[in-house]
Amino acid sequence: MTQTWEHDVELDAGWSVGGGLNGGYLMMLVGGVVRECLPHHPDPVSVSTYFLSAARAGAATVQVRVVRAGGSTTTVAVELRQGDEVRLTLLATYGDLTALPDDVRTTVAPFEIPPPDQCVSNRMAPAEVRANAPLMERFDLLFDPTHVGWALGEPSGEGRLSAWFRLPGGDADALTLLLAVDALPPVTFDLGMPGWAPTMELTVHLRARPAPGWLRVRHHTSNMAGGMFEEDCEVWDSQGRLVAQSRQLARVPRPVR
Amino acid sequence: MTQTWEHDVELDAGWSVGGGLNGGYLMMLVGGVVRECLPHHPDPVSVSTYFLSAARAGAATVQVRVVRAGGSTTTVAVELRQGDEVRLTLLATYGDLTALPDDVRTTVAPFEIPPPDQCVSNRMAPAEVRANAPLMERFDLLFDPTHVGWALGEPSGEGRLSAWFRLPGGDADALTLLLAVDALPPVTFDLGMPGWAPTMELTVHLRARPAPGWLRVRHHTSNMAGGMFEEDCEVWDSQGRLVAQSRQLARVPRPVR
Repeated sequence: MTQTWEHDVELDAGWSVGGGLNGGYLMMLVGGVVRECLPHHPDPVSVSTYFLSAARAGAATVQVRVVRAGGSTTTVAVELRQGDEVRLTLLATYGDLTALPDDVRTTVAPFEIPPPDQCVSNRMAPAEVRANAPLMERFDLLFDPTHVGWALGEPSGEGRLSAWFRLPGGDADALTLLLAVDALPPVTFDLGMPGWAPTMELTVHLRARPAPGWLRVRHHTSNMAGGMFEEDCEVWDSQGRLVAQSRQLARVPRPVR
Repeated sequence: MTQTWEHDVELDAGWSVGGGLNGGYLMMLVGGVVRECLPHHPDPVSVSTYFLSAARAGAATVQVRVVRAGGSTTTVAVELRQGDEVRLTLLATYGDLTALPDDVRTTVAPFEIPPPDQCVSNRMAPAEVRANAPLMERFDLLFDPTHVGWALGEPSGEGRLSAWFRLPGGDADALTLLLAVDALPPVTFDLGMPGWAPTMELTVHLRARPAPGWLRVRHHTSNMAGGMFEEDCEVWDSQGRLVAQSRQLARVPRPVR
């Protein structure tokens, strides 16, 4: 017996950036639909999303199918469609992150970033940039000044970006992490390649529900080749816990004219 | 119009380890079935596999469904079943790795490992270990001696493993990389936790077809928490090209009795 659901959703133009809808927004939106289907397993634990065509603001359908239901986790296959077009498809395992054992043997420390009041706010972006990216009104980002040279035409060339991240109101839950791993500009900005970098695939592992407060988010790439690059992301919460790790494979941005 | 195929396959007991079948073997086997379905897109570019139940040697069915067919890539949804049980499900984007642009801006160098003749061969494992892991007869692994202390009860505690890897005959293609990223023992061996670490999810990005010769493979973990750990893997070919990057989320091994 296969369990499936179809939910109608409305994709909100307020989450667009450069004419497209942000992938993190779509993952968070779809993640919420899946959560409604699985009352005993409220938290995404692993989500692998394949972005297949550019979503547009407006009506869309989310189809959720249970592939395997277990006692502690459920795995689902999901598609987000607009008309005949599949915008994204994903596999996800959901569970209850608060039911996990308490052991933590993390061998890395939270990365260093100056305190929020010494960072550069996304609210400081020029009006024309913000007009093109309404997304930026949806959350607070405070960038580490070490890697914001791209905003002045002087990228560091290291392939790193890091920032404090917060939704208005400040609280975050597991779904917020699906947004947080794809909320910063592409890490290619720091390599002197501004422009939209279309994500082909993004997998995120959620390791704990985040504590309230600012999250710190770091992106890094080390292998740009064949017109593609990987972008690793880690998210730490205000208690110093590594709450999410993600990697995406994206296409190198086309030069901005 | 949805394109789907069903292929019967035979899972070979010669790829078992500790009673289960190796995940890398299953990914390579299923990857070959997908390749047969997509003659214009022979290479996996991104594969995200969710392991749902333990596969057994014997008959199985691979179902392949095209989610989106494009000019340069095709994305498929795949299930491997035995009877009513889904053993694994995956999403994959296939393309032609030889058709990618030639740009390489990789900012990391291949990791250091002593030359093969100074490494520790899997052929040196005790007979009882090899009897329990017929898998080990299927390929050559030459371990960096820095991280084989676990074989003597003295793990380094760093959460690292690295080795030279080769199939008999020596040539590798893109499908070989699906095996290579899951061919070593779990990286938890190096943390003093021997035993089988069941993979929940593994995504691999294939960045180039490997050159002939030995591959070098490195595993690393930094976040063991909540009964789970991530295991990152990178595979470099004999020409010094980073040909595959993977990350898996796995459950911490139960103590060996």
